[in-house]
Amino acid sequence: MSDGDNCRVTEQNPAAVADLARRSRIAGRSLAGANRGVKDRALHAMADALAKAEDAVLAANESDVAAAEQAGTAPGLVDRLRLDPGRVGGMADGLRALAGLPDPIGDVVRGWTNPNGVQVRQVRVPLGVVGIIYEARPNVTADAAGICLKSGNTVLLRGSSSAAASNAAVVTALRSGIRATGLPADVVQLVPGPRTVTDELMAARGLVDVLIPRGGAGLIDHVVGNSRVPVIETGVGNCHLYVDADADTEMALEIMINAKVQRPSVCNAIETLLVHREIAEDFLPAALRRLAEAGVTVHGDERVAGYGTVVPVTDEDFGTEYNSLDLAAAEVDSLDDAIDHIRRYSTGHSETIVTDSQSAAARFVAEIDAAAVLVNASSRFVDGGEFGFGAEIGISTQKLHARGPMGLPEMTSTKFVVSGAGQIR
Amino acid sequence: MSDGDNCRVTEQNPAAVADLARRSRIAGRSLAGANRGVKDRALHAMADALAKAEDAVLAANESDVAAAEQAGTAPGLVDRLRLDPGRVGGMADGLRALAGLPDPIGDVVRGWTNPNGVQVRQVRVPLGVVGIIYEARPNVTADAAGICLKSGNTVLLRGSSSAAASNAAVVTALRSGIRATGLPADVVQLVPGPRTVTDELMAARGLVDVLIPRGGAGLIDHVVGNSRVPVIETGVGNCHLYVDADADTEMALEIMINAKVQRPSVCNAIETLLVHREIAEDFLPAALRRLAEAGVTVHGDERVAGYGTVVPVTDEDFGTEYNSLDLAAAEVDSLDDAIDHIRRYSTGHSETIVTDSQSAAARFVAEIDAAAVLVNASSRFVDGGEFGFGAEIGISTQKLHARGPMGLPEMTSTKFVVSGAGQIR
Repeated sequence: MSDGDNCRVTEQNPAAVADLARRSRIAGRSLAGANRGVKDRALHAMADALAKAEDAVLAANESDVAAAEQAGTAPGLVDRLRLDPGRVGGMADGLRALAGLPDPIGDVVRGWTNPNGVQVRQVRVPLGVVGIIYEARPNVTADAAGICLKSGNTVLLRGSSSAAASNAAVVTALRSGIRATGLPADVVQLVPGPRTVTDELMAARGLVDVLIPRGGAGLIDHVVGNSRVPVIETGVGNCHLYVDADADTEMALEIMINAKVQRPSVCNAIETLLVHREIAEDFLPAALRRLAEAGVTVHGDERVAGYGTVVPVTDEDFGTEYNSLDLAAAEVDSLDDAIDHIRRYSTGHSETIVTDSQSAAARFVAEIDAAAVLVNASSRFVDGGEFGFGAEIGISTQKLHARGPMGLPEMTSTKFVVSGAGQIR
Repeated sequence: MSDGDNCRVTEQNPAAVADLARRSRIAGRSLAGANRGVKDRALHAMADALAKAEDAVLAANESDVAAAEQAGTAPGLVDRLRLDPGRVGGMADGLRALAGLPDPIGDVVRGWTNPNGVQVRQVRVPLGVVGIIYEARPNVTADAAGICLKSGNTVLLRGSSSAAASNAAVVTALRSGIRATGLPADVVQLVPGPRTVTDELMAARGLVDVLIPRGGAGLIDHVVGNSRVPVIETGVGNCHLYVDADADTEMALEIMINAKVQRPSVCNAIETLLVHREIAEDFLPAALRRLAEAGVTVHGDERVAGYGTVVPVTDEDFGTEYNSLDLAAAEVDSLDDAIDHIRRYSTGHSETIVTDSQSAAARFVAEIDAAAVLVNASSRFVDGGEFGFGAEIGISTQKLHARGPMGLPEMTSTKFVVSGAGQIR
């Protein structure tokens, strides 16, 4: 239970993942019993410690960035890795904002009294030990640590090796803040070490309660496919916008541009446009013009090509989450064809219809199987912040436990508390 | 989409599991859109068809029972396999009872309007394709089919080979009832074939939405450890009763006998008794006498042995779910020692304290990590029927999605429906 060196997992001693998980479990007993006041003080202390450690964090980050550049990493990835005073301040602000959110732990989800007088209460409790496996963005380190702490969970942070120095500096600061408030620093631990350590984390069933991968499709598929620990699948979004025969074309244009262009790199941006043939002539010429003005490359089928400049679309395009200023596009003959297309290619994240038809909207909402289905609104609204959750650990695209944007309550389990006066069956 | 022969998976063609799952998914589209009236009519039709097929079901069961007896199966297992007119009637009654329960599908879990006027509703939807892997009790076939149908899920039923003929006869009857109401019979399908078929079911990620194993610890461990499809873990209960220093001894005796003896074969029966040393002298002599009268073999530590006749307890005993008239017993020095013992051996099902001390009860409730924690009541109350759920697919001992007795709402997922009038970010 030493609060000192967190870097106990080395190439020489990879089996220590189980040891980290056990330390996490023990620290979790103090955290699970901590009330909101204690947790909020810890969050503020973490923010203060991070702000104080800004120089050390930036120096560590500089070495990560230099190594990434030397290794020829793509500029976009280097940018995601890079920290500056603004980004460090943003991490601290995020921790302080968490302190302002309600504490889900102890909430009574439901409760009743049985006919025999036995009282039953279903109460929110922490999940326990949460493992986060994430890619190069060091800000996830502070973000995930704060969300887990506020929801009473201890966290094992497994970042990418390219951000190892940055993550270690951030975690050192966070732990010093936690320690100062009297909670055990082991509520937040880094899991360093070689690639095999990730496999050990995925094998640690019974020691780790849930794994949440945050990153690209490759990372998520790997974790989902190989973990023996229960996984919450987040984030891959191959999202569609369907412009129905009865759409308001102006509205459809605005939603299309917003959902594609406002932030193309995120999972709730659209990747494919489907247009009903009856509105194609009214909608597509203007749509292609607006998309071109916004710098979007349209990968269109032959029918779309009849209305403007596109590059030919392939079946692979329809299955791709571009995360860039690219958009696949097809004309469809009917709502049924649009639904069929979406069923075939959707990752079950966020799917949108623009229509003034009640019946078309109702069918789309009922028949599309996704975390979110939108009618006449931009898919960019499917987001924990926009939903008013205040914090978001990710957007779940699975059906068990949590589906859609995950706030603090989604980071909890429940326990039935049954109280009697000696009742028996 | 033929409704005919359901036995398409043979040793020659095991890959057809994926085909069954696809048929299930397609049938699910009709079922997901069916309102409560349609589903309740189907449940009644299933019950009627099962009652009508009683002779065929009993004949098929007779052949299963004869084969099991010939194979030297233990009498207890043969008894669980055996059907009689009463048990077939019980299955039909269970289906009719499901028709009387509220439909969770379409329930609005929460809803709000964003500051920009965008409306968000979180609505219950079916999970999709549910796989049930279960052991020899043929009544699970009708029970699981009914629960899945009422909650809008299609089901793939993978029973044990020893009940193959019984299960096939039951499913044939259920499907004829479903077909008569206009729903596709493929909402309920049997998954026959050799052992490898179970592995295929566990590998069918993306085709099957969730697997629920129902049976002994061996089956559950196998599914949990090997499935790539998300699993809901049910049922293993190594449950403890802790008699605190401040317990009412009469109450503790009644709860102990009820929780051990009323139905020893079930998961919410107690397997270990822990007694605080300060009450041992008052409690244990009477407890050992009452247990002996009830035919219970007590496996006690040396301190318990000082108060009456016991067989020596081993560490293995403390880790065993007996499911029989056996009880491990130990004297502990403190509440802390009781909590430590339970943390070490508990399967996280149902843990009970008997005490009149508020502070001891509060600590036990807070510090024991289990699906249910009971104060002064029998653990036998941790049950879907006792909780008023009307139906129960099992008792979840995992922390994700559902924990504790699972009713119809626990068999659902949710979907966010986001409606606007053209709003963008």
